[in-house]
Amino acid sequence: MAKFKTGVETDRDPNQMREVSVEFDFTSNALVSLLYKQGDTVVLICVSKDARLPGWFPRDSTKGWVNAEYSLLPGSTDSRFRRERRGAKGRTFEIERLIARSLRAAVDLEALGPISLNVDCDILNADGGTRCASITAAGIALRLAVRRLIASGTCLPLEQRPTFEQSRAGFIPAALTGDAATAHENAVMEHDIAAISVGLIDGSTWLDLDYILDSNADVDMNVIMTSDDRFVEIQGTGEEATYSRAENDALLNLAEKGLAELHALQVSLLSDVN
Amino acid sequence: MAKFKTGVETDRDPNQMREVSVEFDFTSNALVSLLYKQGDTVVLICVSKDARLPGWFPRDSTKGWVNAEYSLLPGSTDSRFRRERRGAKGRTFEIERLIARSLRAAVDLEALGPISLNVDCDILNADGGTRCASITAAGIALRLAVRRLIASGTCLPLEQRPTFEQSRAGFIPAALTGDAATAHENAVMEHDIAAISVGLIDGSTWLDLDYILDSNADVDMNVIMTSDDRFVEIQGTGEEATYSRAENDALLNLAEKGLAELHALQVSLLSDVN
Amino acid sequence: MAKFKTGVETDRDPNQMREVSVEFDFTSNALVSLLYKQGDTVVLICVSKDARLPGWFPRDSTKGWVNAEYSLLPGSTDSRFRRERRGAKGRTFEIERLIARSLRAAVDLEALGPISLNVDCDILNADGGTRCASITAAGIALRLAVRRLIASGTCLPLEQRPTFEQSRAGFIPAALTGDAATAHENAVMEHDIAAISVGLIDGSTWLDLDYILDSNADVDMNVIMTSDDRFVEIQGTGEEATYSRAENDALLNLAEKGLAELHALQVSLLSDVN
Amino acid sequence: MAKFKTGVETDRDPNQMREVSVEFDFTSNALVSLLYKQGDTVVLICVSKDARLPGWFPRDSTKGWVNAEYSLLPGSTDSRFRRERRGAKGRTFEIERLIARSLRAAVDLEALGPISLNVDCDILNADGGTRCASITAAGIALRLAVRRLIASGTCLPLEQRPTFEQSRAGFIPAALTGDAATAHENAVMEHDIAAISVGLIDGSTWLDLDYILDSNADVDMNVIMTSDDRFVEIQGTGEEATYSRAENDALLNLAEKGLAELHALQVSLLSDVN
Amino acid sequence: MAKFKTGVETDRDPNQMREVSVEFDFTSNALVSLLYKQGDTVVLICVSKDARLPGWFPRDSTKGWVNAEYSLLPGSTDSRFRRERRGAKGRTFEIERLIARSLRAAVDLEALGPISLNVDCDILNADGGTRCASITAAGIALRLAVRRLIASGTCLPLEQRPTFEQSRAGFIPAALTGDAATAHENAVMEHDIAAISVGLIDGSTWLDLDYILDSNADVDMNVIMTSDDRFVEIQGTGEEATYSRAENDALLNLAEKGLAELHALQVSLLSDVN
Amino acid sequence: MAKFKTGVETDRDPNQMREVSVEFDFTSNALVSLLYKQGDTVVLICVSKDARLPGWFPRDSTKGWVNAEYSLLPGSTDSRFRRERRGAKGRTFEIERLIARSLRAAVDLEALGPISLNVDCDILNADGGTRCASITAAGIALRLAVRRLIASGTCLPLEQRPTFEQSRAGFIPAALTGDAATAHENAVMEHDIAAISVGLIDGSTWLDLDYILDSNADVDMNVIMTSDDRFVEIQGTGEEATYSRAENDALLNLAEKGLAELHALQVSLLSDVN
Repeated sequence: MAKFKTGVETDRDPNQMREVSVEFDFTSNALVSLLYKQGDTVVLICVSKDARLPGWFPRDSTKGWVNAEYSLLPGSTDSRFRRERRGAKGRTFEIERLIARSLRAAVDLEALGPISLNVDCDILNADGGTRCASITAAGIALRLAVRRLIASGTCLPLEQRPTFEQSRAGFIPAALTGDAATAHENAVMEHDIAAISVGLIDGSTWLDLDYILDSNADVDMNVIMTSDDRFVEIQGTGEEATYSRAENDALLNLAEKGLAELHALQVSLLSDVN
Repeated sequence: MAKFKTGVETDRDPNQMREVSVEFDFTSNALVSLLYKQGDTVVLICVSKDARLPGWFPRDSTKGWVNAEYSLLPGSTDSRFRRERRGAKGRTFEIERLIARSLRAAVDLEALGPISLNVDCDILNADGGTRCASITAAGIALRLAVRRLIASGTCLPLEQRPTFEQSRAGFIPAALTGDAATAHENAVMEHDIAAISVGLIDGSTWLDLDYILDSNADVDMNVIMTSDDRFVEIQGTGEEATYSRAENDALLNLAEKGLAELHALQVSLLSDVN
Repeated sequence: MAKFKTGVETDRDPNQMREVSVEFDFTSNALVSLLYKQGDTVVLICVSKDARLPGWFPRDSTKGWVNAEYSLLPGSTDSRFRRERRGAKGRTFEIERLIARSLRAAVDLEALGPISLNVDCDILNADGGTRCASITAAGIALRLAVRRLIASGTCLPLEQRPTFEQSRAGFIPAALTGDAATAHENAVMEHDIAAISVGLIDGSTWLDLDYILDSNADVDMNVIMTSDDRFVEIQGTGEEATYSRAENDALLNLAEKGLAELHALQVSLLSDVN
Repeated sequence: MAKFKTGVETDRDPNQMREVSVEFDFTSNALVSLLYKQGDTVVLICVSKDARLPGWFPRDSTKGWVNAEYSLLPGSTDSRFRRERRGAKGRTFEIERLIARSLRAAVDLEALGPISLNVDCDILNADGGTRCASITAAGIALRLAVRRLIASGTCLPLEQRPTFEQSRAGFIPAALTGDAATAHENAVMEHDIAAISVGLIDGSTWLDLDYILDSNADVDMNVIMTSDDRFVEIQGTGEEATYSRAENDALLNLAEKGLAELHALQVSLLSDVN
Repeated sequence: MAKFKTGVETDRDPNQMREVSVEFDFTSNALVSLLYKQGDTVVLICVSKDARLPGWFPRDSTKGWVNAEYSLLPGSTDSRFRRERRGAKGRTFEIERLIARSLRAAVDLEALGPISLNVDCDILNADGGTRCASITAAGIALRLAVRRLIASGTCLPLEQRPTFEQSRAGFIPAALTGDAATAHENAVMEHDIAAISVGLIDGSTWLDLDYILDSNADVDMNVIMTSDDRFVEIQGTGEEATYSRAENDALLNLAEKGLAELHALQVSLLSDVN
Repeated sequence: MAKFKTGVETDRDPNQMREVSVEFDFTSNALVSLLYKQGDTVVLICVSKDARLPGWFPRDSTKGWVNAEYSLLPGSTDSRFRRERRGAKGRTFEIERLIARSLRAAVDLEALGPISLNVDCDILNADGGTRCASITAAGIALRLAVRRLIASGTCLPLEQRPTFEQSRAGFIPAALTGDAATAHENAVMEHDIAAISVGLIDGSTWLDLDYILDSNADVDMNVIMTSDDRFVEIQGTGEEATYSRAENDALLNLAEKGLAELHALQVSLLSDVN
């Protein structure tokens, strides 16, 4: 039981992540729908395939695109969060851009082929770490979406995609199966991607901040990493505080520990779903 | 197995409602959070208490207010539904107004007292009848919210509410319990409220339209009713069709049958939750 | 002279419609411009032909489209109505959608041919029943617009429309005249369309609610009907009240009486205008 | 019959204004409602009294305010004018600002007292000169509004206005009548105000441009003047043309002739209305 | 040292313009960037060439277009000016339209050829007369932009422009040089353009109003003129004051004096820059 | 001369910052106005004092607030940047939030007292690193603003601020001077703040990225630091690339070198300005 300068207490272990659980196919209309819980933070991820590539893409592009949107549901927060119907807030845009950038760093858009995917991250309940939970959950959902697009013959290696004339003539290519399907899935997403928040409270480092920890943190850091231990993004922030190089290094060390656990979990969850 | 003029087939029984299930306290931050499924239509209802009554209320009002918002999540529809960040669509406004009006018809705002409630209806998956499902689910959630506000001493009969001076002096009134609590709950919501859609397809009436039925319907009608069999709202619509008085009456008869089942279900669901 | 519970008095007869008058060609720029008065409710209807069909229409469509917009002028209401320059309100969208749906139910869009019509309903003075007055007036204006488009050779039966090559070569088809023109007008609009409001005040039914009646009504109902006595739309609403099946039926009976009068008036008004 | 370089012909006399007619109390809800026709340009003016002075006014202001809004109805123009629901266009703002500034130049806001007036200028049909017609019509409507506010005891000279304490005590001051009323009306609006457009076409000056003249004009000029022959505003514009000092002077001379006629008409129209 | 009725003093000479200075190529990314100071009013003009003509231009247009935008930087005014991120204000639109119209009056769009230019006028510091300073500065920048487009071979006389086939074949026409370049520059902009404000304070005329003069002025007038002494636009305005024909003439006389000075300055500044 | 994989060449030294220059009081209306150049990136910083603290502050707050806004001028970028009049983009919000957070980390808001400052960062020319240049420049401007507010007696230590009664009675406290002023300045801003970008290109680290370097970078990192060598914020980003812990450490080392130079420059620039 830790007690902070502000008087708040918590029974969290500073080096322990919250429990994570996943429910696949939570809803039926999206290509992939996944309910992800990390402690009391609950995220619904839906992956949809767009009818078209973004307007700024060149015609006949051989590359694809991955975009993400993020939203807090009104009832997800302690005091009701107002719907963003007159334009989203800066915070929302910032988080969406972070999620989308992170996902694109984990996907080979050329291998994906001319397919545009939307990853919607809707927060049903917010108890801290919603942007990191969104990335970790979206990483799982995105791999499953790629797996399903390969299984349906929609996603193919460049050399096996039908030509424009073939498509027009109604030719439908065979979908990849077995090892070929797995190989192409790994070509599109060589590594998994996950994110975790760490923080500095009264000089100590904490893993996977919930709302109480987050509001007591002097510094918080979001670390996004692929499963081959390379950083995609590091965002360390002190709103009204600063931190030393040594503290920076300690935070990164703790984040790497949490990310290793999340990557192991992703492998296990994805091993037998399709 | 019915087959329509358009060639579509369905195995639905024309007089049979879809299965309904409810999960209370699906998320933890809202006053009441309820996951409601009617067939493949999935709605998350969150009821929140506002800090303040709406700005246009008189100071020192003894009445309360109930508002509602409605939104389709992007992944809830077959082809992704674009977030309404540049202003909601006409359809969204129309549904929100319908839900809010219906709920207010079931609540005695004077008995509720100076409390402002927001009922958020977020559609996680849309398979027809989302506005009716929202009203039926919101009716359950609203009664539970009233029950909890009574249990916490927040909602009291007029004569037991503390005066302004008492509040200021820190006086906290005792909450109602037992029969008094039940009596006040019934004073605030004398009857339950539910809604159902019915439709006319190729001259036959159908109960509780799902997406396939809805897209084949020549006329569809939403009927909102209290548990004492009085109408709150009837909306019968033929987009490019018309209907006779006899057809109108047959549709109302079928709706009344479905509503009786929903009201029975509400009573049963609410009997042992608090 | 009736006196309501709220103390308000009126000299209206409960079963009597307000006086209706129409001035054709009130302004000169629109295809059809019509000033419609029902009691003190004053509506200006302007029908315009768009240069193009809506963007979501397929190329080479043989069908047309009818849209409607509705607006309260700032000076039309008792206390000034603020212009909707930051987006229209929910109520406005709801009324526009109702008017447009109703008009389309009265028009055979295939017979109309690839023509897009806009029906603007601007309320110059609002004394209750503005949405119903808009529909009744728009019904008259729309038939006159069709008549004029036929007379100018713009609206033709499918088999007489010029081919794309003929149009390009400058071929101008002869306009229909006499019985052929009348027959095509009736193909495009087989029946007239009108709308009326009815309401329940202190347990009694009232026809054609003006502002005073409307503000005293426990239930109000808008009924839209074609001249062959088929419903296009029924919207019965109790904001903080409910109503029985018997009351519902009595309201529909009274509405049917008013609609019969309006349909007779439409026939008479349209008999000698072109 | 004049023929322009562009081949367009007109039977207008270059020095002749179009016919002007006015219908008072065209609608019933506004304080003053006036239908103004100048040739085929048709404007509906409604003057409303706001409940409150603008927010940026000091508390206990002894001065009033006059604002104006301007809008083209969708059916007023040859090809339908799109409603400005996503913000008004620059042209609309520019015209509103011009009308409001002009009206305020004709009103003594101190004599008016703490009253806020809105003058809505809605163009029902546009055939050139809509901003000038709006000002001339609004000038008439505004004087009538002042007359009615005096008659109802709402507008009083400073020394006869009730004190705050008197108002609170329910004291209602007697309204001015007879010569005192007339004197106060003239204190509030010492002079009438009117506006006219003039233009230069192929080197000749033209009075009161309609749409055809306006589209052929190399230079057009709007001149706003009080009835004591003093300018309120002069706006001379050549979009893709320029003009000499001599041409400027000739245009002003012609404008002064038209304005004298309008001022005479205003006096006559206002002489026996109340 | 003049002292006004309001008690304000100034050491300005009523017939004297403020000092003007210009720095060419103040920034490096725009086609032309010019820092213009007139007293303490500081304007940054940037001219950019658009990739495309406006959408409403006909395909294969031989004409070009010139547009302008105007903005006050937040720090430019005495009390911070709020960024116009929810739509520009009426005043901003009005000024932008004035600047753009004025520039187009000084340019032969046919001689310019199918080139679209944007002239951005950003006010870094505002001490009165910002719209006139913008026009005078933009007039200089626009001529320099034309000079540079001619020097780069982008702007050519109609008969020397490459055909569509030539462009496609990669043919690059030689740029004009020497007298031919000068002749074409003068064909595109036959005359320079400048603007000045004049005002009436306590019955006296003043030239080139700064903020203090402007806030004391009963009437202010903006006069835009080409270097051959022809008016492009005259805007005389009295917000709560009026003015006589004689005062109007005196103001124009004073403006003509100031404009002659500005035109001389423009010639001198442009004589050796490229 | 380095040459990248993409074929681009640069003559930059990888460990060398671009030249920095500052012009104080570039414009006259703002409290502090500063023109900052770092290579070809040009930023105008204006600091303004708001009339009021933000609305969400408690009444009688003893703390102050610092906000920041950021904008690219249209002419600042290679192809014109469209004004953000329909709402700012996500990138803009993200940068504004970063600047504001960073500045607040360098200011003791309690020592500042109930003063609200706005720091506007307008980019006149953009050649990479605009957000970092904005922070470094804003850091200088903010210290100067504090110095001036102290010198004018506006900013005082808590114990020397006048009471509400004293203020109302017109009591004006003496401004701090000499060492007391310096001490209070250091209490408000104990350390300077600066920011620098570093990047990874083809496996090598680069300091202070300009546009060419930035577009070739696989990873770029913005590091914000106070002059006591503590981090305020670290943002490392790989859009379509990842990086190792060792590369992360090398980037931080290089950033620390650049920041030391910037902090030395800030001390020197601020030593004799007031």
